[in-house]
Amino acid sequence: MHKIEHIAIAVKSLSTSIPLFEKILGNPCYKIEEVPSERVKTAFFQTGESKVELLEGMDPEGVIAKFIEKKGEGMHHIAFGVHDIMKKIDELKKEGFEFISEIPKKGADNKLIVFLHPKCTNGVLIELCQEIE
Amino acid sequence: MHKIEHIAIAVKSLSTSIPLFEKILGNPCYKIEEVPSERVKTAFFQTGESKVELLEGMDPEGVIAKFIEKKGEGMHHIAFGVHDIMKKIDELKKEGFEFISEIPKKGADNKLIVFLHPKCTNGVLIELCQEIE
Repeated sequence: MHKIEHIAIAVKSLSTSIPLFEKILGNPCYKIEEVPSERVKTAFFQTGESKVELLEGMDPEGVIAKFIEKKGEGMHHIAFGVHDIMKKIDELKKEGFEFISEIPKKGADNKLIVFLHPKCTNGVLIELCQEIE
Repeated sequence: MHKIEHIAIAVKSLSTSIPLFEKILGNPCYKIEEVPSERVKTAFFQTGESKVELLEGMDPEGVIAKFIEKKGEGMHHIAFGVHDIMKKIDELKKEGFEFISEIPKKGADNKLIVFLHPKCTNGVLIELCQEIE
């Protein structure tokens, strides 16, 4: 893992939380993007080499809504940048790690992504992401 | 905020979680440090310009133990690096933000730190930290 690519925060409403995080971070939101495959709307803020990503669910019964119902708004996952996602998946599988799905899919912000299963990562939902060239 | 300084993860046992995160991150833990003022033991991993910090509570009744009891092991807080912590505290207070304590104290890894109150940050525990010269 060569950097923290982003920290994702589950929020009820981007329209409320974007101005809030603009004040906290002192940086403007530079992109709002829907990710239909994940049924989420995302908003991004640059902070050094990393990003803060706000996540609003598009479905009242979706994963983000359920996360907020169970745990409240707050940190949802941490994403690490990798140069070769297939190689990193293989390495971690050999170490015994499990993935939610082993096949990378297209995430927000032009990335290939996979998630490690939090049962093998101390409860932390960890995403690996590789920039699509 | 000029970068993500670190992501802190609450764990039950550093001795279990240090080798786990060494495998995930592909980097060795470079420092273990006790922070008596916070009653925690910390372990650090470098990832790009940011760090991953594991937190183990030193007291069975302390804040980390209570966090794990309530929410399970997982992401505890996010820390942003600032160049002038007093100036940033003043700016955020003027915007209406509240702090757990407004007076910076000495944290791990040679930093002055304060925490924003999560009630005004969408439930995210946010630390500001400034390198001590």
